[in-house]
Amino acid sequence: MMIDKNYEMGENERLDDLQCNGYKLLQNTACFCFGMDAVLLSSFTHVEENNILLDMCTGNGVIPILIKGKNPEKKVHYTGIEIQETSYILANKNVLLNGLSQDIHMIKGNVNNLKELIGNTLYDVITCNPPYMNENHGIVNPESAKAIARHEILCTLEDIIREASKHLKVKGHMYMIHRPRRLVELFLLMEQYHLEPKVIRMVHPYADKDANMVLIEAVKCGNRQLQTLPPLIVYNRDGSYTDELLQMYNEK
Amino acid sequence: MMIDKNYEMGENERLDDLQCNGYKLLQNTACFCFGMDAVLLSSFTHVEENNILLDMCTGNGVIPILIKGKNPEKKVHYTGIEIQETSYILANKNVLLNGLSQDIHMIKGNVNNLKELIGNTLYDVITCNPPYMNENHGIVNPESAKAIARHEILCTLEDIIREASKHLKVKGHMYMIHRPRRLVELFLLMEQYHLEPKVIRMVHPYADKDANMVLIEAVKCGNRQLQTLPPLIVYNRDGSYTDELLQMYNEK
Repeated sequence: MMIDKNYEMGENERLDDLQCNGYKLLQNTACFCFGMDAVLLSSFTHVEENNILLDMCTGNGVIPILIKGKNPEKKVHYTGIEIQETSYILANKNVLLNGLSQDIHMIKGNVNNLKELIGNTLYDVITCNPPYMNENHGIVNPESAKAIARHEILCTLEDIIREASKHLKVKGHMYMIHRPRRLVELFLLMEQYHLEPKVIRMVHPYADKDANMVLIEAVKCGNRQLQTLPPLIVYNRDGSYTDELLQMYNEK
Repeated sequence: MMIDKNYEMGENERLDDLQCNGYKLLQNTACFCFGMDAVLLSSFTHVEENNILLDMCTGNGVIPILIKGKNPEKKVHYTGIEIQETSYILANKNVLLNGLSQDIHMIKGNVNNLKELIGNTLYDVITCNPPYMNENHGIVNPESAKAIARHEILCTLEDIIREASKHLKVKGHMYMIHRPRRLVELFLLMEQYHLEPKVIRMVHPYADKDANMVLIEAVKCGNRQLQTLPPLIVYNRDGSYTDELLQMYNEK
């Protein structure tokens, strides 16, 4: 399959410019479309030469594509895993669209079956922008693609942390973004599965508002010492993006 | 004993203006002198009419005196507990100096013997500005008053959290200030002793520097949901105090 500018969009598909190394992203508006959290997580993630990286709940593949875009010179191999057929197909198209077949490999499946899918592979880095919501009551259609991406329907936070820990090298790094309201649960689960939280960064929409996202870096079997980075503020008082946010959206 | 402007200072004693409801504070420069953390913790603590409050590791009594000063109209009874003789004597002098004998009562003892000291009393609010440091190696003199105030020599973080939980009413509130590097340990211990972290606030010396203090409010047997308040920034870029800090130092 080749995807180029003559590619004919499918139903609900749209093509976005990632503003990152010239990469583009096909999205399906019936599925979860990537948001600021993907940009923040990919900027927060540190990769080194010859790392192998796994992105859990990869959706349309935006996280590995953005990390690759922000680290174009580094030889890193990326694997994305996605459970939903439509998103998985989209992720593959996005890899082709950006000429990244040598760098990024997509797997379809549930993170709970990781061992069957990847065997005993141990990664240097695991990233995840998981479903944030654990209150599943009141979801109109629990089979809808968006509900699955947003709510813990097909995998829980514990599933993600347990499986990440199993498939990380000792001293390997996990990078996540989540809701600060679940930070206690995050720390408890990470401790339970030997992922030591080492760095957090709170994301506040405005300097005088509560945090609505938190970035976390954990190290498998790391020693206990947490660093809290300066707050990341999204908007200036006048509603424009802060310089740091703009830089994250534009960094190559 | 009466303390007034004719009071003759003891060796190493100095008298500071708390800039809060006209209160003064005797400090002993050979002991731990109060710092910004006491001001932050007392501003962060919420008391309600008819509450009874216990301040653990009260030192020279600065925390209950400041909370009283910031809530002069509220009828709250304060108890402070301090293990070190010199600080305990100073705390009593400070209560007298400010005419607060009806409001604040000091107890001398170790938080590990709380039950012997206060029986089965359950408090609405417990505050603590504990020793921050758990690395006790390299302390020149572990019997020195400053070392005891700064390092976990006579009581550990676990002692404080366990005893606070024992002596807090169900749904009672604990307010602490600590180092963010120990936040994971704080959350784990609080969970272990049924104190649910409900609110945190990171304190950053400058907007672009790592947090160096964290304020935590926990509720005994609270439900799990954490709020992260806007970051508290201490200094403006030019090194002057931020407006919010100045307000905390001056609020009545």
